[in-house]
Amino acid sequence: MNRLEIYSQLALPADSRILYYVIDGLGGLPVTPGGPTELETADTPTLDRLARAGSTGLITPILPGVAPGSGPAHLALFGYDPVETLVGRGVLAALGIGFDLRPGDVAARINFCTIDADGNVADRRAGRIDTPVGAPLAERLDAIELDGDVECFVCHVKQYRACVVLRGAGLDGRIADTDPQATGVPPKHPVPRHADAEATAALAAQFIAKAGELLADQEQASGVLLRGFDTYRPLPSMVDLYSLRPAAVAAYPMYRGVARAVGMHVFEAADGIDGLAQATRDAVSEHDFVYVHYKTTDSRGEDGDFDAKVKEIENADRVADRLLENDFDVVMVTGDHSTPAAMASHSWHPVPVLISGGPCRADAGGGGFGETACLQGALGTLSSVDLLPLVLAQAGRIGKFGA
Amino acid sequence: MNRLEIYSQLALPADSRILYYVIDGLGGLPVTPGGPTELETADTPTLDRLARAGSTGLITPILPGVAPGSGPAHLALFGYDPVETLVGRGVLAALGIGFDLRPGDVAARINFCTIDADGNVADRRAGRIDTPVGAPLAERLDAIELDGDVECFVCHVKQYRACVVLRGAGLDGRIADTDPQATGVPPKHPVPRHADAEATAALAAQFIAKAGELLADQEQASGVLLRGFDTYRPLPSMVDLYSLRPAAVAAYPMYRGVARAVGMHVFEAADGIDGLAQATRDAVSEHDFVYVHYKTTDSRGEDGDFDAKVKEIENADRVADRLLENDFDVVMVTGDHSTPAAMASHSWHPVPVLISGGPCRADAGGGGFGETACLQGALGTLSSVDLLPLVLAQAGRIGKFGA
Repeated sequence: MNRLEIYSQLALPADSRILYYVIDGLGGLPVTPGGPTELETADTPTLDRLARAGSTGLITPILPGVAPGSGPAHLALFGYDPVETLVGRGVLAALGIGFDLRPGDVAARINFCTIDADGNVADRRAGRIDTPVGAPLAERLDAIELDGDVECFVCHVKQYRACVVLRGAGLDGRIADTDPQATGVPPKHPVPRHADAEATAALAAQFIAKAGELLADQEQASGVLLRGFDTYRPLPSMVDLYSLRPAAVAAYPMYRGVARAVGMHVFEAADGIDGLAQATRDAVSEHDFVYVHYKTTDSRGEDGDFDAKVKEIENADRVADRLLENDFDVVMVTGDHSTPAAMASHSWHPVPVLISGGPCRADAGGGGFGETACLQGALGTLSSVDLLPLVLAQAGRIGKFGA
Repeated sequence: MNRLEIYSQLALPADSRILYYVIDGLGGLPVTPGGPTELETADTPTLDRLARAGSTGLITPILPGVAPGSGPAHLALFGYDPVETLVGRGVLAALGIGFDLRPGDVAARINFCTIDADGNVADRRAGRIDTPVGAPLAERLDAIELDGDVECFVCHVKQYRACVVLRGAGLDGRIADTDPQATGVPPKHPVPRHADAEATAALAAQFIAKAGELLADQEQASGVLLRGFDTYRPLPSMVDLYSLRPAAVAAYPMYRGVARAVGMHVFEAADGIDGLAQATRDAVSEHDFVYVHYKTTDSRGEDGDFDAKVKEIENADRVADRLLENDFDVVMVTGDHSTPAAMASHSWHPVPVLISGGPCRADAGGGGFGETACLQGALGTLSSVDLLPLVLAQAGRIGKFGA
């Protein structure tokens, strides 16, 4: 019996309501050895209060030493083994914009790009064309018809980004990216990574050729690059696994995609404090598990801007204060991974976590919410995948194992 | 996908240089409850400085409660699952003396022993005969020829110890030890532990009989005891797994054997500070990962001599100071296991570890390098097998998982 089956069999229905607040890229690093991290520098009265009232710890997203992408990092937070449960970015993109994917569909992300007279990629993002330009082009590609009994859908995502979905019998998404990750070279062919994917790869090549013809009149968006091919295989839903009514509040499509992949009802939030607060208020009326995603902490970490990330963490703290206006029995706050400004990238460092509400042990340190204080937290250091069961237990939703 | 495959796929080439310093049996125990351990008693300015500049923690060698042998403890430090990746002592002994083992060879350790007139073992180590006596006797046994198309090699190791290698088609090393671990009883027969090993066990029995004939003129070394039979199956090399150029600096054959088993280039060091320092200086010129092994801390722990182990730890600290004369980007210091003088044996207690260099979090305690201080370290308590990936990550050699 795998761990998901164990927890699912032990899951209890309950009236408790859970806030699952994910501050993207929350964990950080000191700029000088032994100095404070971004979180330790930020003024976070609400998170500190929650930490002192509850228990803290640290979570390792995937494996020691491994910096995760946001997709697998979130799947781990939602209790799915992130190595066994890889979901391709194409599938997450399609789910993220609310496309009604069906099992067996193959999805890939599209970047509009500029192809020069020699057939080389001149700009991998087509001069970052904006949504008013990109949306009608996606609509144009949606008319493409492919050989055989295969349907083809193209949906716009944002700016120069879109996604394509193929639907038909026997499709297989084990196909390599066509994005060469460089300019001055031609796009790659959609090479099958498995013999069973040869026919699907041929259809992808046909799609790319037809897209090129339809975009021939465009100066900037004269071609497409495809990435993150995957076959949609629905995950076991959090609804079925844990008798939850889960909802997601997220401003960014990718996170809505992960949330849909695990069976959450998605509330599309406007970015910012009021947007997240309002969508959360809407969500709590009919849902007992609300995942709220705060994005821009990660963005400022990726920028390598320590001070700007500190400010975003302070903003995320104000969001927390607003979220708590609703009546939650258990509150969990963490990040999907660390994005230290000192590294300007995702990192492998464990992420601070707090659980407040329900029966909590006291931390050894008691120093509020920060990387060093959490080292002495009652939760210890655990795998991200172990977090959801702990939170469900705090909410009275996991029963006894054995008699 | 197992963890070795995951890490291997994520491995990045880099220019960084790593020191991997293993102080054998480093971990200890207090003599009085709550008192200091050997490491906490020792004056270790260099290790303390590295600990304060970096992150510390504790590693569990194999599984909680399990005292490891040096072979599996080292394999875990090198990132191999020590339970799945058992390498027999016979194979490590042959590799340790530089014998050119080929896949499918079966190797075993030889102890010369004294057999009395009744055919019983009178001394399991043949009166600890010294190398000038043992070496020519090993050469004598190297002339043994066995039935069938099987080659037989005997190499001297040290004093009363040697090893035997059988080479031929279809050999199988699943054979029980012949050492009865007692005197006054006859040696055991080389019993096959698997049906496929019956023919090889018969060859081992033939070897033992012929050795007895060739040693009939000896008073002390009148027979042989065989231990640690194993078939040589090369492990995936650290070179291929991680794009490293790894080297080992070790004075003792067994550790050179483990190093060769994982693809390291071996520098044979003279024992002591100058020997290790000189060999390390030689190693860094062409290698970017240097494993240095310090042995005698374990020996004094095995002796049950607390004060002598403290002195050896202080010596190991002086070695560290010399090793740091070279230019390393990331430095890791730990032990393969604990050897508390209070127990006079290997133990299961987690071992202090420090990583210095690269993006480090601050410890909660900041109290230098010792068992109790490391409890508050930023690395937490982890499995030995997780250590190498963390060190590689600190050195910029592990990429992102998923998008």
